[in-house]
This record gives sequence, structure tokens and C-alpha cells, in this order.
Amino acid sequence: MKKIIAIQGAEGSNHHKVARDFYGEDIQLIECMSFDTLVGSLLDKSANLGVMALENTIAGSIIPNYALIDNNNLHIIGEEYLNIHHHLMALKGQKIEDIKEVWSHPMALLQCKEFFKNHTHIKLVEDVDTAEVAKRIAKENLKGIAAIAPKIAAEIFHLAIIEDEIQTIKDNSTRFVIVQTNEPSINKEVNKASLKFQLNHKRGSLAAILNVLSDCKMNLTKIQSLPVIETPWKYSFFVDVTFDDYKEYQKAKAIIEIMAEEFKILGTYKNGRI
Amino acid sequence: MKKIIAIQGAEGSNHHKVARDFYGEDIQLIECMSFDTLVGSLLDKSANLGVMALENTIAGSIIPNYALIDNNNLHIIGEEYLNIHHHLMALKGQKIEDIKEVWSHPMALLQCKEFFKNHTHIKLVEDVDTAEVAKRIAKENLKGIAAIAPKIAAEIFHLAIIEDEIQTIKDNSTRFVIVQTNEPSINKEVNKASLKFQLNHKRGSLAAILNVLSDCKMNLTKIQSLPVIETPWKYSFFVDVTFDDYKEYQKAKAIIEIMAEEFKILGTYKNGRI
Repeated sequence: MKKIIAIQGAEGSNHHKVARDFYGEDIQLIECMSFDTLVGSLLDKSANLGVMALENTIAGSIIPNYALIDNNNLHIIGEEYLNIHHHLMALKGQKIEDIKEVWSHPMALLQCKEFFKNHTHIKLVEDVDTAEVAKRIAKENLKGIAAIAPKIAAEIFHLAIIEDEIQTIKDNSTRFVIVQTNEPSINKEVNKASLKFQLNHKRGSLAAILNVLSDCKMNLTKIQSLPVIETPWKYSFFVDVTFDDYKEYQKAKAIIEIMAEEFKILGTYKNGRI
Repeated sequence: MKKIIAIQGAEGSNHHKVARDFYGEDIQLIECMSFDTLVGSLLDKSANLGVMALENTIAGSIIPNYALIDNNNLHIIGEEYLNIHHHLMALKGQKIEDIKEVWSHPMALLQCKEFFKNHTHIKLVEDVDTAEVAKRIAKENLKGIAAIAPKIAAEIFHLAIIEDEIQTIKDNSTRFVIVQTNEPSINKEVNKASLKFQLNHKRGSLAAILNVLSDCKMNLTKIQSLPVIETPWKYSFFVDVTFDDYKEYQKAKAIIEIMAEEFKILGTYKNGRI
């Protein structure tokens, strides 16, 4: 049976690329125009799996997505780091001089602002998505219109890339995760875990937890504190660790379970950084 | 001599409110339409002080602003936490039925989307700023137009608040900091510090630092790791601590100086949370 995968954005988007990298081309997509809708499609079982961006080098953590995963008890079962590239694409045969308007998501337009300063004949028009515009250009044979989208969109919709890498900041690595509602069966091949716990604002409480992680040979790859909104002086911590020995990971888990409040494994999976 | 304070956005904005809370009404503002411009005005000495948002409960840390402070060696000398409220305002005497268009910053429009779903007769028009629109409505006596801005804007420009608290998410606390280029003179009244350091991806390296902080009676109020883009497996940490005893703080500082790389004090100041 084909996997049904909910992605943020449309076919041809970076979320689609991640879905394809994990599960190949024989998948069925559910295109969601928000992360809330995406999670909704997992909860009502219309999708088996979801792809969500979780952090990037420009903006840092996407806190609302951490909250969506946490509040809805989703399980992270995989991750991928992708360098985000914005390409200007249009119907084959079109040159940059032919382009009158570019339609794209406000964020993509913003990230390519510098490029368009040098091409003032192109009018910037806000649209709902990046890749969906590429699809529309192809389907409706729209001349004079360009999309800003990842390479995969040009490939799928047979468009020509007029200019590549038009984003102002070249280094924009984004971390995507694969999520599902069901608890996955235990897989000892995993070497990374995402943990969440709460601590009281007591001196040394975080240091004590990190000492346990260190004693159990866990390597910290990310740590982030968030105040617990309802409770002053209480903090949530989101921590990612990598490890070589699954048994040591289990040991760390058992100890932190006792030491911290609201301890939760958001997921165990294979490290996406090579 | 009047203090010259660079703020992000216009007169009547939340940044203006913070400037006024700190330095009173007898100040000269430099209105900056981006944080880069704001920092520019500090570096070229056209402003003495700057007000910058640094994190909020919806989106988390504003990573680019941390980078601006760090890369330009600015000093944080104060902080304030503000609950962000969006109010719909127009000329006095105007009712909600009279409003045909609301002009505001795309982010403010987005944060009030739910409210406008129930008022479909109002057209949403994107503009450069929130408070600046309030000023324009007052100055040009624009009927039928509303702004989304903080209360201070209604006060300054003598507008009427038609609807208050129109933002969808009610709990949006934002942390602002006061920055300057000059190193401030030592003030032992301070009880909070923002630290930055780098660590190699060596097991236990962060735990060791946190143990020192704990031993020196520092209370952690924030921690955030960021990968150092140029160097794989190296991490930057931004840590905020509060303390009662300045001498203990100096001790912690002296030890971490030896233990961590690229150790830097982004600022010492009075804790803005009461």
C-alpha cells in the first residue's frame, strides 16, 4: 500500500523533497497549507506520516512546531538536513527579460530581495506557496510569470531554471523531521534522540541532568530552554543527543525519568547529519 | 542633552514604549525600518542607544538579532518584558462599520487573522509598519481606515481604539533589550548577565560549564545552542543567568574564561522580570 504523506506546502516543495528522499517516488501526498492542517491530517488518520521543518540556520528553532509535536504527542521517526536553495523558474524558452512578474510566498520574496533589486522590471506578487506557483505556470502555460521554488519543482513541472541560488543568504540549512501518531516499534539501529523535560528554577538542576547525559556517553547536539508560560520560574528543555550504544541511551532515559518532571521522548531515529 | 534612541519601527510602536519606559518622554527617536539600520545608526554614532526585540513566546529567539549584537560587539545594558497587544484604532467617532480598510505590517495582519474573519467588510492592506499607519491616519485625517498598533500609538496620535486585544494568540510576551556600542562602566547593582561561549562537541563540556555556574550560585534563565556554521561539531551557547552576589558572578566569569572558547559577556543589567 502506498504511503500517504502530509507535507507543508505543495508538490515540488522542499517538504516534498524530504518525503521523496525518505520514501521514494511512489507515495501519495497530502498538500497542507499550514502546519496545523498537517498535524490535523495525521490525527484524523488521513495521512500516515508527516514532514515538518523544525529549525533553520537563519531563524533558529520553529517553536510553534515543537509545540505541535509535543502537545499532540507525535513521534519523530526520522530527520533530514537540507540546504535551502531558491531558484527562479519559468516556462522553457523564457529569458529573464521576458519575465514581468514573479509570484511567490512572501517569505521567499523577502529572502531574494537583493536579487530583485537588480531586476526592477520584475514585479513581486505575493502568493500562497512557492512550488504551487511553479505547477500553475506549467499547467496554465503562463508566459511572463516566474516562480521561486526548489529544483525539484522545475524537474516535476518541466520548467526551466532561469537563475539559480537567488536567495540573499546563501547558507540556509533547514532540519526537517518525519512524524507519526503511532509509537514506533523499538529499533536499536537508532543513534539520536529528542528529549523534553521540565525543571524547576533550582540552581544546578540542568547541570545535574547534563552530567547524567555525559556519564551515559550521550553527545548533546542541541539544547533550548523555553519558559513554561503558565508557571513562572519553571522551564521546559528540548534536548537532542546522539549516541553509539543503545543500552547507554536506555540507562540515561531511566535516570532522567526519575530526576526531571514531564519527561518525554519526542523520538528516537537515525542521525541525519553525516 | 537629550538621549538619542534608535528604535525598530515608528513612533508609537512597542519599541518606542520600551524606550519611554526606560528614559522617559524627553528623548529623541530615530525610527529604523530594520534591525540592520538600527545597528547602523549606533555604529555611525547617530544614536546613543538602541531598543531591540530579542525573543518572544510565539516564535522564540530572534536569532538574527543575537547575531547582530554579537557580531557588532554591542553591549546589552537593560531589558524589559512586554505583553504585546494589538488594538484596532481609527479617527475618533469612527465605528467598526465605518472601517473599509486596515493598513498594517503583514505580521500584525497575520496575528489578527481570526478577528478579521468575523469582519469580512474590512479589506486587509499590507503596509510597512504598524504605528506609522496610526500616525498617517491622524495626520491626513483618513476616514474609513484603521491601524493595528499598541495603545501608546492611540495615545500619541489621539486616535480611538475601536477594538482592543484583536490578536489571535493572547499570550505574546516579548523581551526587549537596550543596547549601546560603548562598554558601560561597572555597576554592581546588576543582577543578570547574558553570556556567549563556544564549546567543542566533546562529551560533558556543557555540563562542566553549567556545574561552574551552579557552584557560583548563578541561576540559569535561558540557554540556547547554535551550531557554528563554519565549523562542524562546534557549538555556540547563549546563556542568561541571574544572581544575587556580584562577586560570585565575577568568580564564575573568571573560571569560564579559562574553560570555554570565544567567551564573551553580551551584557550585565538589571533583571526585567519582577
